[in-house]
Amino acid sequence: MELDVGGSNPPGCTKIMKKKISRPPVELPAGFVDRKEKDLVIRDFLIKQIRETMTKYGFEYLETPSFEYSESLGKFLPDKDRPSDGVFSFEDGKNWLSLRYDLTAPLARYSAKNFEEIPKPFKRYQIGTVWRNEKPGPGRFREFLQFDADFIGTSNLLADSELCVLASEILNKCGLEKEDYKIKISNRKLSIGLLNFLRINREEQKSITLRAIDKLDRVGMNGVKLLLGKGRKDKSGDFTKGALLTEKQISKIIDFLSIKNLEELNNFECDDKDFQSGLNELKEVIENFKLMNFENFKFDATVVRGLEYYTGIIFEVLLTFKVKNEKKETVEFGAVGGGGRYDNLVKRFKNQECPSTGISFGLDRLLYALRQKNIFNFKQKKPVLILVLDKKYNDYYFKVLNDLRRNSINSEIYSGSSNFKSQMKYADKKGCRFVIICGEDEIKSNKITIKDLDIGRNLSEKTSSREEWKENKNQKTIEFSELINFFRN
Amino acid sequence: MELDVGGSNPPGCTKIMKKKISRPPVELPAGFVDRKEKDLVIRDFLIKQIRETMTKYGFEYLETPSFEYSESLGKFLPDKDRPSDGVFSFEDGKNWLSLRYDLTAPLARYSAKNFEEIPKPFKRYQIGTVWRNEKPGPGRFREFLQFDADFIGTSNLLADSELCVLASEILNKCGLEKEDYKIKISNRKLSIGLLNFLRINREEQKSITLRAIDKLDRVGMNGVKLLLGKGRKDKSGDFTKGALLTEKQISKIIDFLSIKNLEELNNFECDDKDFQSGLNELKEVIENFKLMNFENFKFDATVVRGLEYYTGIIFEVLLTFKVKNEKKETVEFGAVGGGGRYDNLVKRFKNQECPSTGISFGLDRLLYALRQKNIFNFKQKKPVLILVLDKKYNDYYFKVLNDLRRNSINSEIYSGSSNFKSQMKYADKKGCRFVIICGEDEIKSNKITIKDLDIGRNLSEKTSSREEWKENKNQKTIEFSELINFFRN
Repeated sequence: MELDVGGSNPPGCTKIMKKKISRPPVELPAGFVDRKEKDLVIRDFLIKQIRETMTKYGFEYLETPSFEYSESLGKFLPDKDRPSDGVFSFEDGKNWLSLRYDLTAPLARYSAKNFEEIPKPFKRYQIGTVWRNEKPGPGRFREFLQFDADFIGTSNLLADSELCVLASEILNKCGLEKEDYKIKISNRKLSIGLLNFLRINREEQKSITLRAIDKLDRVGMNGVKLLLGKGRKDKSGDFTKGALLTEKQISKIIDFLSIKNLEELNNFECDDKDFQSGLNELKEVIENFKLMNFENFKFDATVVRGLEYYTGIIFEVLLTFKVKNEKKETVEFGAVGGGGRYDNLVKRFKNQECPSTGISFGLDRLLYALRQKNIFNFKQKKPVLILVLDKKYNDYYFKVLNDLRRNSINSEIYSGSSNFKSQMKYADKKGCRFVIICGEDEIKSNKITIKDLDIGRNLSEKTSSREEWKENKNQKTIEFSELINFFRN
Repeated sequence: MELDVGGSNPPGCTKIMKKKISRPPVELPAGFVDRKEKDLVIRDFLIKQIRETMTKYGFEYLETPSFEYSESLGKFLPDKDRPSDGVFSFEDGKNWLSLRYDLTAPLARYSAKNFEEIPKPFKRYQIGTVWRNEKPGPGRFREFLQFDADFIGTSNLLADSELCVLASEILNKCGLEKEDYKIKISNRKLSIGLLNFLRINREEQKSITLRAIDKLDRVGMNGVKLLLGKGRKDKSGDFTKGALLTEKQISKIIDFLSIKNLEELNNFECDDKDFQSGLNELKEVIENFKLMNFENFKFDATVVRGLEYYTGIIFEVLLTFKVKNEKKETVEFGAVGGGGRYDNLVKRFKNQECPSTGISFGLDRLLYALRQKNIFNFKQKKPVLILVLDKKYNDYYFKVLNDLRRNSINSEIYSGSSNFKSQMKYADKKGCRFVIICGEDEIKSNKITIKDLDIGRNLSEKTSSREEWKENKNQKTIEFSELINFFRN
């Protein structure tokens, strides 16, 4: 951690600076990235759509801090194999603090803390960074922006239903069409009930079974079969222990996972009461969807959601349009969000029944999806650049600048110390469309010369003096009084 | 760190839940807070003003991540006494990562990394959270939102000047008047030059001297005198070692700190070349201010800025209106931002000259100031609440809801499971102005009853049935077709 900060010495301390300097890295740690304006502008657009939707639906904005006591966050990360590695934790005196890994655990803590003050249901939304201290890999970030909407303190399934409807509205507002996405719903009570029904009661066996089902996406139906049975060896040769279920149990689970719609679910034989209650809840949610004219959903028995705190209705927001993956294969984009009912999370903190439900979106992933879809064509309005041909004309240049800015026209005066050619290159690099070039002639006659670089963008490499530039077209000299109108139109 | 997450077990696992549960804390670690909508709405307004100003002035938006390699951040925190405690650091394999404590160090790293691609000057702004792992105390946060604007790669003092002008424009846009704030400017080269002039050359003595000057605010002129001399004992009895300067040296420094304006500075005897260069730079900046019609500044010799990386022009943004402090004394609000020139920061990373300058605002502090000033009267438009008198009327209620939302009127249907009285209380708690109450009568006749709670807000405690409510005024029944117009007007 010791480092030489020689480069930061104030002037007059040149002696120290002559020490050999070991330079700090300019690279970022794995799993972190710099984000540039091009992406940020689209992200802001997304956030604006989300916030407008949330206000319209009657949700309140809340912001909990990045850090919580580690115990408050609990251990709910899906990747059970690395229970304490999943978060960034920090010793603080006698306590441990952790950076939040989602926005749900902090909300549960907040709701318990302010239990009496919050209206119930407490409809809140939050947009914030979450951190996962996972093994970084290509495309795996350790910091990402998440959006969450939740209902705290209601068992009414209207809440769960509305979360799906608002997810759909947000996607619509972001420019997606109905055929671009689908919301898949299921109920955690179905798998719980099925396990009861099959008398899979031992905690470990139950847990291995549920995890096997959750891996369907990655390992396919045959992989799940192996994981439910004796276990599975993956391509790298690693062996994952199976749940050691009987043939009959496995076959029943596979039948369940193969259910394609609610009708088939209705006919599926399983007289467990959790299972039946799960089925009835799904029916009620679908009734609610009808009331809200929402049709873009599908029952899917394979939706299980990794997080172990879910207790009822669960759902996933899937983008269904095709994209190329890293191997250049064409695949469906996949999930950008999901959520479900977690009736026991607030109870961790406070001895109070507080049934709740919520949805999360990964905004970076959604942003990436929308860019793939090429819906956006945002242009941040780049400033008009006033070139400085000679500092002695500054009076005139600033008269122009002040006038432009007073009229809210994005503009700047060149603030480096280089010559004409470099100033043009600067405009180019920055993506400015217009430069203002005023020399003695213009200033004497109170005029302004404006160059449109979008037309002459490739010329900057070839010309070096102002005289050469003048010969090019796409340059116009106007009266000072016409300045504002020129840029307004 | 081991904790019982019994409360999170899915249904059907009731046995486990009977275990004794030790509950996690609902409190936040010291130095962190939850922020509610009332504050967030104003903060968003601030951010909007900032972003509009930045775009207008030709700055680009950039977002670097929360984490950097610890070495990349360097040790530039003002509080030298706790060099490694000032940041949140995490061990990551062979490396150490830290959460950024400002936005300048990451910008320097970014600029070095992308040195060839960025236009020079690179005008970027960033709004982001920074973390300081300081000893938490009342009103001292360990996480706060900061706004930074910087020019990377220019020695042109136009840059420094423009930072002050844009700070002023942002404050104006936030609703402050000219007399509410002032920008104090100075130059790090003045104190450096003065020390040269006084032949204070030993590193330790220099460093103690500069720190003594920086403490003027807290310890007063007499305190500074002691710290420049033999040392100072504070109220708690703690002794701070002094710089052991001679009487003559001390008196010259005190003379310098007592300079009230540029004219006095001009007449101050000090023929050191750094000092004179500092003076000339100040004159040039003030010339630039004139060109931009900016007058709300003041030279102040006591401005030194804690961060040791500054090399030239430095400035502080001060709010001058009076507020009550914790001891109920009336005081000037004080600094909300500041910055200056740091010509050597990028050089830490790359063997390139890259003179730079920047400004930072503490947004939480600015927000607090503006609230004190009582400028804002934002009302987040709370939703119209549709009460559910009976689920059997859901068809009608949703017809109303869909109609309202289709017309972008903030609205919700009650999504809890309680009776009429509780629904009214919910509306009250949430701050809704209008509730829609439709029973059989309304539904049969295709009408809608709307209650204005702003008028009858205090009645909800006293009434418990719908019949009682009906007797109150401030309730209106309209045709369904008039619904949208009612809320639009």
